[in-house]
Amino acid sequence: MTPGFAAVDWGTTSFRLWLIDETGAVRGRRSAPTGMGQLGAGEYAPLLEDHLDSLGADPSLPVVIAGMAGARGGWVEAPYADITHGVAGLAASAVRVPHPRRDLRILPGLKQLEPANVMRGEETQIAGFLVDAPEHTGVLCLPGTHTKWVLVEEGRLLRFATAMTGELFALLAKTSVLRHSVGEDGLDDYTFRAAVREAADAPGGPMLPLFGVRANALLHDAGPAEGRSRLSGLLIGAELAATRAYWSGRPVDIIGAPELARNYQIALAVMGTAARQHDAEKLTLAGLKSAFAKMNRRET
Amino acid sequence: MTPGFAAVDWGTTSFRLWLIDETGAVRGRRSAPTGMGQLGAGEYAPLLEDHLDSLGADPSLPVVIAGMAGARGGWVEAPYADITHGVAGLAASAVRVPHPRRDLRILPGLKQLEPANVMRGEETQIAGFLVDAPEHTGVLCLPGTHTKWVLVEEGRLLRFATAMTGELFALLAKTSVLRHSVGEDGLDDYTFRAAVREAADAPGGPMLPLFGVRANALLHDAGPAEGRSRLSGLLIGAELAATRAYWSGRPVDIIGAPELARNYQIALAVMGTAARQHDAEKLTLAGLKSAFAKMNRRET
Repeated sequence: MTPGFAAVDWGTTSFRLWLIDETGAVRGRRSAPTGMGQLGAGEYAPLLEDHLDSLGADPSLPVVIAGMAGARGGWVEAPYADITHGVAGLAASAVRVPHPRRDLRILPGLKQLEPANVMRGEETQIAGFLVDAPEHTGVLCLPGTHTKWVLVEEGRLLRFATAMTGELFALLAKTSVLRHSVGEDGLDDYTFRAAVREAADAPGGPMLPLFGVRANALLHDAGPAEGRSRLSGLLIGAELAATRAYWSGRPVDIIGAPELARNYQIALAVMGTAARQHDAEKLTLAGLKSAFAKMNRRET
Repeated sequence: MTPGFAAVDWGTTSFRLWLIDETGAVRGRRSAPTGMGQLGAGEYAPLLEDHLDSLGADPSLPVVIAGMAGARGGWVEAPYADITHGVAGLAASAVRVPHPRRDLRILPGLKQLEPANVMRGEETQIAGFLVDAPEHTGVLCLPGTHTKWVLVEEGRLLRFATAMTGELFALLAKTSVLRHSVGEDGLDDYTFRAAVREAADAPGGPMLPLFGVRANALLHDAGPAEGRSRLSGLLIGAELAATRAYWSGRPVDIIGAPELARNYQIALAVMGTAARQHDAEKLTLAGLKSAFAKMNRRET
């Protein structure tokens, strides 16, 4: 039986912690908007202890952390492992953070040298996905600020790509000239699907269609929900054109927050491709549990 | 002989004024970083008078203004004229701003209903270009925050497109994750050209190549000038892929600030197309003079 531990997903803008007991059940959880983007190196340890204390965790409970806390400029750097090593070796490459009582480790991200690419946090979700499908073949799509597309063959990671779609959406919606024409919520299904198609078919992707979000508001009274749907559809449609070599003709599994994953599922359907949806949080937790189990198997 | 007047280019972020005498010569000039983005409707008139006073302009000197001062939310709205009316009618569609002594007019922008598009300010540069080439056939490229591509046939404007390339560059270089890997100056010619080619050939344009700016810095120690050159090349390359139907097989004339225009000229050369470069300020002034001359011809 595996002992209990604390599983932590510490990203750029958020912190999530789960207390896992020896049966694998979640016994407590905490989350906070304090990520690597807001923290100096010295702030991680006391924050983590506060969260553990607030849940009544044992002072010697082991902790496994995934995500940007392990980036250069984060808490303690956990150097990228090569994608060719796959997710099986993540636990073995984890970096120990010195601590008087706890076994505290940060999992590494993955790198691909050519074309250059990196991920940090998604590798743990992928590991979680592969727990139940160790011989999986297909493509995994992990939408978010930086969407990852990962080619998997018989459980091995072959290659991955990154689209800055979520970050582009936020920048364009909030700080570009398009902000005047993009609302804060609402998704118009017809507009979204039409925009996916438009950008997927456009040479150069979103470069010319984007300004249409503004021009359609000025000349044709397009409303804020329409602008938002169009902007989202244009960026995701262009991303699908860019990643066609990944998703075309392969099983597609989307791992993400439910609403965002659903938008990708709709966009892929526009392109004639079915995709399954998986909850990212559940797979993050499965990946952290799997890493902790491996650490214990290796050492006992 | 045309009387003297003040020519004003009042954009989103800048103000430029030239005093033109009755021979057409520039007798004084002023510029300031006070554009439509910084001003309320009531602030335009006193600012303009201050600038005119500082140059000793006659209190009844006529003024012709082009640019965002005529946008909704600017000083006084000068509604968009339809592109099918061309630049010949801009002077006739100018909107008078009530003034106790001066004849003060704002030139309209141009609109295209389908696909929806608008320009404001560039139409005056185009009019300036056509002064010396009234029967011109070819494509005009006006690079800037929002680059315009305009198809011209025998002096008539057929169609135009907008790429938000300059705004995307600024957002990505200054506020996205790429900011860590993009310097404030320097252009590495080889990197720029390679990036133009890469994005021009990439399905979906910049969607996948962009993150490479960050990943190459993390994994291959790409420096800040290399990052800047790569980001610029990727965006312009994707824009050229998007606008191929405009520039392919036609004479290309670039109207822009010299350094930026030169980058577009290099990028077009990478794509196998020669282009001539023209100074935007000179053509803005030519367009404003032409509009003022037409106003006077019509009314005398």
